[in-house]
Amino acid sequence: MSAREIILKELLDASHLQGVEALLSWDQETYMPEGAGAARAEQVAYITTLMHSKLVGEPLKNALEELIDLKTGELRIMTLNDRETRQLKEIWRDYRQEASLPTEFVSALAKHASVSQQAWVRARKDNDFAFFEPFLTKMVQMQKEKAKYLEVGTTDYDSLLDQFEPDMTSENVSLLFGEIRERLVPLIQKIQEVKHRVNGSLLTKEYDVDKQWDFGVTMLEAIGFDLNMGRQDRSAHPFTTSTHPTDVRTTTRLRENDLKSALLSTLHEGGHALYEQGLPLEEYGNPLGQAISLGIHESQSRMWENLVGLSPAFWRFAYPKLQAKFPDQLRNADRDMFYAALNRVRPSAIRVEADEATYNLHIMLRFEIEKMLINENFPVAELPQLWNEKMQEYLGFTPANDTEGVLQDVHWSFGAFGYFPTYTLGNLYSVQFFNQAKIDISGIDESFARGDFSGLLDWLREHIHTKGRGRKAEELVVELTGKPLSAKPFMDYLEEKYSKVYNLS
Amino acid sequence: MSAREIILKELLDASHLQGVEALLSWDQETYMPEGAGAARAEQVAYITTLMHSKLVGEPLKNALEELIDLKTGELRIMTLNDRETRQLKEIWRDYRQEASLPTEFVSALAKHASVSQQAWVRARKDNDFAFFEPFLTKMVQMQKEKAKYLEVGTTDYDSLLDQFEPDMTSENVSLLFGEIRERLVPLIQKIQEVKHRVNGSLLTKEYDVDKQWDFGVTMLEAIGFDLNMGRQDRSAHPFTTSTHPTDVRTTTRLRENDLKSALLSTLHEGGHALYEQGLPLEEYGNPLGQAISLGIHESQSRMWENLVGLSPAFWRFAYPKLQAKFPDQLRNADRDMFYAALNRVRPSAIRVEADEATYNLHIMLRFEIEKMLINENFPVAELPQLWNEKMQEYLGFTPANDTEGVLQDVHWSFGAFGYFPTYTLGNLYSVQFFNQAKIDISGIDESFARGDFSGLLDWLREHIHTKGRGRKAEELVVELTGKPLSAKPFMDYLEEKYSKVYNLS
Repeated sequence: MSAREIILKELLDASHLQGVEALLSWDQETYMPEGAGAARAEQVAYITTLMHSKLVGEPLKNALEELIDLKTGELRIMTLNDRETRQLKEIWRDYRQEASLPTEFVSALAKHASVSQQAWVRARKDNDFAFFEPFLTKMVQMQKEKAKYLEVGTTDYDSLLDQFEPDMTSENVSLLFGEIRERLVPLIQKIQEVKHRVNGSLLTKEYDVDKQWDFGVTMLEAIGFDLNMGRQDRSAHPFTTSTHPTDVRTTTRLRENDLKSALLSTLHEGGHALYEQGLPLEEYGNPLGQAISLGIHESQSRMWENLVGLSPAFWRFAYPKLQAKFPDQLRNADRDMFYAALNRVRPSAIRVEADEATYNLHIMLRFEIEKMLINENFPVAELPQLWNEKMQEYLGFTPANDTEGVLQDVHWSFGAFGYFPTYTLGNLYSVQFFNQAKIDISGIDESFARGDFSGLLDWLREHIHTKGRGRKAEELVVELTGKPLSAKPFMDYLEEKYSKVYNLS
Repeated sequence: MSAREIILKELLDASHLQGVEALLSWDQETYMPEGAGAARAEQVAYITTLMHSKLVGEPLKNALEELIDLKTGELRIMTLNDRETRQLKEIWRDYRQEASLPTEFVSALAKHASVSQQAWVRARKDNDFAFFEPFLTKMVQMQKEKAKYLEVGTTDYDSLLDQFEPDMTSENVSLLFGEIRERLVPLIQKIQEVKHRVNGSLLTKEYDVDKQWDFGVTMLEAIGFDLNMGRQDRSAHPFTTSTHPTDVRTTTRLRENDLKSALLSTLHEGGHALYEQGLPLEEYGNPLGQAISLGIHESQSRMWENLVGLSPAFWRFAYPKLQAKFPDQLRNADRDMFYAALNRVRPSAIRVEADEATYNLHIMLRFEIEKMLINENFPVAELPQLWNEKMQEYLGFTPANDTEGVLQDVHWSFGAFGYFPTYTLGNLYSVQFFNQAKIDISGIDESFARGDFSGLLDWLREHIHTKGRGRKAEELVVELTGKPLSAKPFMDYLEEKYSKVYNLS
């Protein structure tokens, strides 16, 4: 076998392990009996460690070294075409990241992540931050250690951020977030002053969960999710995972007195799932078959959740169907009333339930806090107080307790520091892409109103999904929209949208 | 680490892989989307190959070689206690079996097994044996090859049988089957002559599948299945698997016009599951934490299905509950009527739907055919004809088509030759064990009638489950019952039982 063939073979093996790991984790959140938690943690840690060993093993390393200087990334072979060059560069990037982490560290981290996540579940249930504190303290320590190993950013936090959003820096994030904040805070204030105009109680009547499920599946199918190569299940927290592009799984959470939550999370996860189903099968097992970054991934979920699912055109198609499912509950609500309720802006405690506007304040707060934890040794014990102060500052709101405050999100418990910013980056990407799609696709609103989303999906497939990791996020944005990522399109969108919903002057 | 520690560590790693493989297969039969079949086959083959590499790898081999002569099994260390000696001998047995198979062969077999099983699914659906024939032909070839590698039996077939029922020989099986046949054929004839006395139509009314499901779960819980460390799902064919003793999964199949099938299969799989849940956790990852053999495993499923679930005492407890679930359907049937219907003997095409008596004829026929395939080069193309002739000879019955004939069972498609005899061996073991349990436990029928099965379960836990592979099947039988395995207790049981049910003279 040639060096390139060896590399692809080793990476394909690692992808099998990744697919297996995805199934283990999916099962853990959906069907696994409770008493199996400890055994499952061992299995996941073992597979994770195997995958690491594969990715830094001698066969891959030696073959890679033939083609590229492992230190500098300089090519040693001149016969590669553009695609192969790009592929090799990305393989090298992954290798460098993986090889910087000692195997014992990877194994210890995987085990602690599992234990710490289980501790978080309990602490959140019992509103007991003190119980979680030692686990989180250890996790923060391990993440600092990880950052030192990775050593790709100018700060420890930047090194962690780079795992999720390659080449993004916290300086850049701060600039973008600053621009958003400057326009978002006055917008929310304006809305707050007239908020009596929108009543959300319509969405908290009694809605049978099985009917909510059926409606969600209909919507998933409508936007193009292929149930022959994927499925939906229920879990405590909605998520999407992929054991392979032919097996992409989303979950949703259903509550009888909350119509909005399941509906939007179904479209959100559907957006992630469409990206995974659209990745190029012929590149399976190498970086070109993977998603670009979490920010780009989030642009897909946000696009289907917000730019499609919260658009007037979508509801011209979907509202009659929803009314038919829930005739008693929705009889007296016309489409405009329903649409306004769905788009109500209101500062609240929980990120995943926040509206499109205030959502980003939740992210900014987390971004600031996690930088303090990683770069400034901020003491974990003082986290609840810091959280509540920042919530008051950003959202004019103090959470009732830690469960609805600092304990609400799972991310930190399993070590995902530097992950949160990608949510707001996803919002920015989504609007910038969508503006372009509206230019490229004629009559997109009319198609949505007919329940035809294939124009948008085809556009995403062609320009984003099938490209895999063939370009960097920043390259993709410029290539598709002619401009680098900016907060302006997103803020223009929000201002225009809410001016209509709230009749702002 | 000492040699023993290294061995146990390597085996524990292999057990993680085995647990992972179990989950992949469970998922394939329950929730996996159809389009993921090809990717899943790759994943399973990869994990299977990894497991093999682990089990024959240098670390395990070298450590094992320090303690035992790999050729002869002679101990090189004299400081081991009985338990450790037994453990080491079993590890050596497994090692020898695994090491005899080349890695490329293991990988090729795993892939062909997956492909061949998928071909079988299609052939069975389409009643198209010709489509399946080349896959089965190749599988038979590979199994002969496997037998040559294993080389533990006096014939190729014996080598294969030994994988499932260690130290059992086809000669021994033939002797036992001969004894059974001698008494079973006249018994069935006798029953046939009076068969008008029992009417089974009661069981084929319309029974809501959700209610069947609920009743089944109630029964699983009643016999002691721990739903905190296990679960039940639906699948096309009922099975039980274990990703770990804390995560044991059974499945059942529900049909609206068939009350008996789901009911008995639930108890059957429940019996397998109780064994898996009862294996000693402290021995997890080494042979002492595993089941003895498939025959012993089947003794557990058969005991709960037949000796408990088809006993009059069980239905004194269960029938009022079943009647409460299905008042319309069962109003006019008293317990005796129901019991007789459940125990009706009738030669039929499908093994898994056969009664306790004719079931064993289905096994004998398969045992003879698979010996012919493996030892005598019987041509696969002529299999349907042979099958139908044997069915006529054994059961006085020719299947309507191949789907209900030679294509009905999955086993051969994935290479399980030598597996079928363990079903009837399980019947023999079960009765011999149960007779002893009835001696050891006072008032067992009265407990059953109260819905208390803990006496029997405790007995099985103490004498069988918690012993893992601590003794060989034949040792266990003698230890527990004072006698070697024999067909007599089983045939005595059948004759006595059916004399009552059919009022035979």
